[in-house]
Amino acid sequence: VTGLADAGAGREPIFSTTLEVRWRDLDAYNHVNNSVYLTYLEEARLRWLSQAQVDWAGADSGPVAAALQMNYRQPITWPGTLRVEKYLVKLGNSSVTLGHRIVDAGDADRVFCEGEIVLVWIDKSSGRPVPLPDSLRRVCGG
Amino acid sequence: VTGLADAGAGREPIFSTTLEVRWRDLDAYNHVNNSVYLTYLEEARLRWLSQAQVDWAGADSGPVAAALQMNYRQPITWPGTLRVEKYLVKLGNSSVTLGHRIVDAGDADRVFCEGEIVLVWIDKSSGRPVPLPDSLRRVCGG
Amino acid sequence: VTGLADAGAGREPIFSTTLEVRWRDLDAYNHVNNSVYLTYLEEARLRWLSQAQVDWAGADSGPVAAALQMNYRQPITWPGTLRVEKYLVKLGNSSVTLGHRIVDAGDADRVFCEGEIVLVWIDKSSGRPVPLPDSLRRVCGG
Amino acid sequence: VTGLADAGAGREPIFSTTLEVRWRDLDAYNHVNNSVYLTYLEEARLRWLSQAQVDWAGADSGPVAAALQMNYRQPITWPGTLRVEKYLVKLGNSSVTLGHRIVDAGDADRVFCEGEIVLVWIDKSSGRPVPLPDSLRRVCGG
Repeated sequence: VTGLADAGAGREPIFSTTLEVRWRDLDAYNHVNNSVYLTYLEEARLRWLSQAQVDWAGADSGPVAAALQMNYRQPITWPGTLRVEKYLVKLGNSSVTLGHRIVDAGDADRVFCEGEIVLVWIDKSSGRPVPLPDSLRRVCGG
Repeated sequence: VTGLADAGAGREPIFSTTLEVRWRDLDAYNHVNNSVYLTYLEEARLRWLSQAQVDWAGADSGPVAAALQMNYRQPITWPGTLRVEKYLVKLGNSSVTLGHRIVDAGDADRVFCEGEIVLVWIDKSSGRPVPLPDSLRRVCGG
Repeated sequence: VTGLADAGAGREPIFSTTLEVRWRDLDAYNHVNNSVYLTYLEEARLRWLSQAQVDWAGADSGPVAAALQMNYRQPITWPGTLRVEKYLVKLGNSSVTLGHRIVDAGDADRVFCEGEIVLVWIDKSSGRPVPLPDSLRRVCGG
Repeated sequence: VTGLADAGAGREPIFSTTLEVRWRDLDAYNHVNNSVYLTYLEEARLRWLSQAQVDWAGADSGPVAAALQMNYRQPITWPGTLRVEKYLVKLGNSSVTLGHRIVDAGDADRVFCEGEIVLVWIDKSSGRPVPLPDSLRRVCGG
């Protein structure tokens, strides 16, 4: 699981946004808990989809995480401002693979984690994959 | 990221434990949020280390997640009782790779997710890797 | 805010249930974070409503917290098993006031917190109060 | 528990700060979960103490919540920017009572909740109350 190339190395993100660390994100080790990194990625992803006017919250269909890969590079502490970057890795029929990085908002060379997530668009009642919405294809340049 | 073999397929776990889903684990999709799966894995891992009398919470050194891989198979709903299974994949000098599965406690064929995590033992002041504690090697049969 | 009588002192709860503390419930002080007490109360409340077959999750109406009072008595640590107790304080037309206590499941004299919560039943589209469901009145003996 | 006067009505806050709602703050009702309001209050409180250079995170002593009172006025949705306001209600020997309000950052008349919290400064090893630090008295004008 460590051999994956960093999707963000030397490329332009398709989206980036900044987030504030909350003290509650810390665990008893006094570092941001590893589960909270996924919340940061999710928040960035939903801001991206919202800005691109992709209807991800509708009643009929929407994205779910199908697979996730994360390399944790260094601990995140409080207080702090993070930048979450998204990269397009692969655009499929029903799925899109996004690379991600979380970096220090004031020092992009300080990489806290990088990895990939596979999102699948599903029909909410049946749970079956459906074609990606055109609005998502457009924002991915597809 | 989807090609990984399921470490738990047809093998005996080195540890398993049951957990209750909480309603707060759900998100606005009415499914357990994908970040919470990591909390389930963490809880099982710390119960395992505690039962094996591995000193993971001490002041000097302890485990951190270095890499994570997850395949999300189906949504988890509330209420529910889960079983988290841990598998030994690889025992290194400073790191251990654990396979994991989260299944329905009442129906082990209902697999909610599986994947792997790489834990590295670090010195808490320097952040540098240190040899795994003997107590952990013993419980891993190493 | 400290003068409130303990609703649970010397009375019989109308419901009690046990919960496991999770390590993620801790914060950087190594104690369960004060916000998580509300998650424990919520989990107990929804188990109670579910067992009493009160339709709280339906599309039309359901309960929301209108007011909360909590006295934090002593810190909760991990691992631990808690018992959450619910007391009926007042049954109104659209609202019910519940007393609550969180105690050590193995030692009921060890009280971690007590207080009260006012729940109001609302119409989910308008946000307006509606009469409490009969199923809730019944389980409250009203 | 509903009779408490709103500490923030018509007064100047001693501190205010803005926060972003995260999608993960929502629960299955699609509103910010009532426990998360406490996380917002905590984040604002710790920013305030940090800016005032009060040593709240030290090894020896620090604040714990002793009592909390909250009136929930209306649901918080995602996305949104909140302003958390703090008011001084009472300065004791070992404790300070703070009023709080969470309002819409763009419309201060839209009040999501208000209430009070009693913080007690304790010795971290013994758990016993200790006098408030001078730095805190100064920032409270005491």
